[in-house]
Amino acid sequence: MVTIRDVARLAGVSVATVSRVLNNPSIASKEAREQVLQAVATLGYRPNANAQALATQTSDTIGVVVMDVSDPFFGALVKAVDTVAQQHQKYVLIGNSYHIAEKERHAIEVLIRQRCNALIVHSKALGDDELSRFMDQVSGMVLINRVIPGYEHRCVWLNNVSGAEMATRLLLSQGHQRIGYIGSSHGIEDDLQRYQGYLQAMTQAHHSAVAPPAAWRAQSSPDLQGGEAAMVELLGRNLHLSAVFTYNDSMAAGAMAVLKENGINIPDDFSLVGFDDIPIARYTSPKMTTVRYPIVSMATLATELALKGAAEQLATGVSHCFMPTLVRRHSVAPWQNVAPVTY
Amino acid sequence: MVTIRDVARLAGVSVATVSRVLNNPSIASKEAREQVLQAVATLGYRPNANAQALATQTSDTIGVVVMDVSDPFFGALVKAVDTVAQQHQKYVLIGNSYHIAEKERHAIEVLIRQRCNALIVHSKALGDDELSRFMDQVSGMVLINRVIPGYEHRCVWLNNVSGAEMATRLLLSQGHQRIGYIGSSHGIEDDLQRYQGYLQAMTQAHHSAVAPPAAWRAQSSPDLQGGEAAMVELLGRNLHLSAVFTYNDSMAAGAMAVLKENGINIPDDFSLVGFDDIPIARYTSPKMTTVRYPIVSMATLATELALKGAAEQLATGVSHCFMPTLVRRHSVAPWQNVAPVTY
Repeated sequence: MVTIRDVARLAGVSVATVSRVLNNPSIASKEAREQVLQAVATLGYRPNANAQALATQTSDTIGVVVMDVSDPFFGALVKAVDTVAQQHQKYVLIGNSYHIAEKERHAIEVLIRQRCNALIVHSKALGDDELSRFMDQVSGMVLINRVIPGYEHRCVWLNNVSGAEMATRLLLSQGHQRIGYIGSSHGIEDDLQRYQGYLQAMTQAHHSAVAPPAAWRAQSSPDLQGGEAAMVELLGRNLHLSAVFTYNDSMAAGAMAVLKENGINIPDDFSLVGFDDIPIARYTSPKMTTVRYPIVSMATLATELALKGAAEQLATGVSHCFMPTLVRRHSVAPWQNVAPVTY
Repeated sequence: MVTIRDVARLAGVSVATVSRVLNNPSIASKEAREQVLQAVATLGYRPNANAQALATQTSDTIGVVVMDVSDPFFGALVKAVDTVAQQHQKYVLIGNSYHIAEKERHAIEVLIRQRCNALIVHSKALGDDELSRFMDQVSGMVLINRVIPGYEHRCVWLNNVSGAEMATRLLLSQGHQRIGYIGSSHGIEDDLQRYQGYLQAMTQAHHSAVAPPAAWRAQSSPDLQGGEAAMVELLGRNLHLSAVFTYNDSMAAGAMAVLKENGINIPDDFSLVGFDDIPIARYTSPKMTTVRYPIVSMATLATELALKGAAEQLATGVSHCFMPTLVRRHSVAPWQNVAPVTY
């Protein structure tokens, strides 16, 4: 491989001069610049990114930590970060962390050691204290889908409770009373918040302080297979539910497959509302009614904030809480069976 | 931020000694190791990965170039690479290249400059010559879903033609004659090979050299939306097709949505076969008959080969061509209408 020494030899200058031309051209002489760039072109020299990062104390990579890049929600997040990165001639370094504290910590540490000057982190397993310490160390680190008090200007998050309330109220407004909740087994705050929104809407609707029974909730992995398993579980419990609100669209699509396989028509016999509005929601049959999580806008903003943070240009005193919206398609129908609800 | 100089000062040794202890501990004295590691612990010093990479001329990142990480096929590929990477305590640096030559070149160059010692590259837009030059430069670079003559031991690929023949023959064996092909508009060799397999099966079946008319082929983006658009196009042409073979499962799922929306029952009125066997294929209604692309096994092998290549331990004289297999689910039914085919 061609080294900086070969370039210096051919250009007839010192290694320090070559380094200066490549890393800080404004302080090199015009003559040195021409000689060095000529030699670089002749030899096909490729500067070592690690040496450049050392010299300039930055790198041309943006780091992003997500749960699992093969999950469509996180795929959309990473793609949005990548789009902004490309506009800034930067590349994206991804760490999967599977909602496990040890892996989240390791992913963040590796990206910091790579001297990423901008970091977008989706962390659910680490505590506020540990994340704040990382953020104090790295000015370009921004959290997505989480907020830590005192760091609101460096967090981009969604009001999960409101989204779940919207979904549940839509079902209630159509006459449904026995509404189940299919949640994530990852035990992360998103699931707790969406369950809380569901509970709030349910208890308000029945003008009582009694919450729906615990048996109306089933949990599994937040994907197609998990939605399938959770729906099988709810059907097996023979609860006479007429609708479910699900943690995300993948689980709703998995649940729909089970219902159809069992001859239960959607939406005539059973209604569903998903969460996220990933592309699959427009291609189920019937098309899925869901709650839109504006992940592309949020990841785009997070990346811009991270780049500003890296340049120490981040505004304080602002916060970045997004609101979900309802997307009404065809997986919800009115419920006629108005037998009184019994908890 | 704590620097290596702070560590040297506290340990009472030179910067070079600190560097030696951290990068090459076997050649440092026991006393120096103890002093330095004590100072590192006291100060919470975090070694700079770029400096380490320069010192050892390797890095702890594996590079992977894919078309688009938010596509489920490439998400599965990246996840398989990540699984192997984690077993080796390495992190994955991803570049999206969107099947565009300039972006593929740039992604590979950036990863090389980051001194990734293992690279798994999915490249469709660059020529054999340019890719061979990169591979000559980087011993740990492996191609996935492509083969270049002379580099077979560093390529992991699939027999696309056979997979397409299997799919088309399955439809022919069920009495279908007017079978369309829904392809990718990306103009990559995978699409040409799958179209070729379809043509071979079709012309052999009719014992003639006449190929199906060009109008039976529709092309669009290789995703849900593209499959929807291509199916709308084929229906609009009024070709009386009874079946289609599609470039991938996402396109098949998009096509199924259009058919159902138009009251065309699958599989009674219309049969489909997809390609890839991504998770969605098990959750369409009816479940999709498809051709399995063993991407997880292939990406796992490619990563292991790349790590061996980086260590200069790669066996030559072997090749890694995988075969697809048929997965029969419920989107294909026999076709009774046996009117003679007219091209």
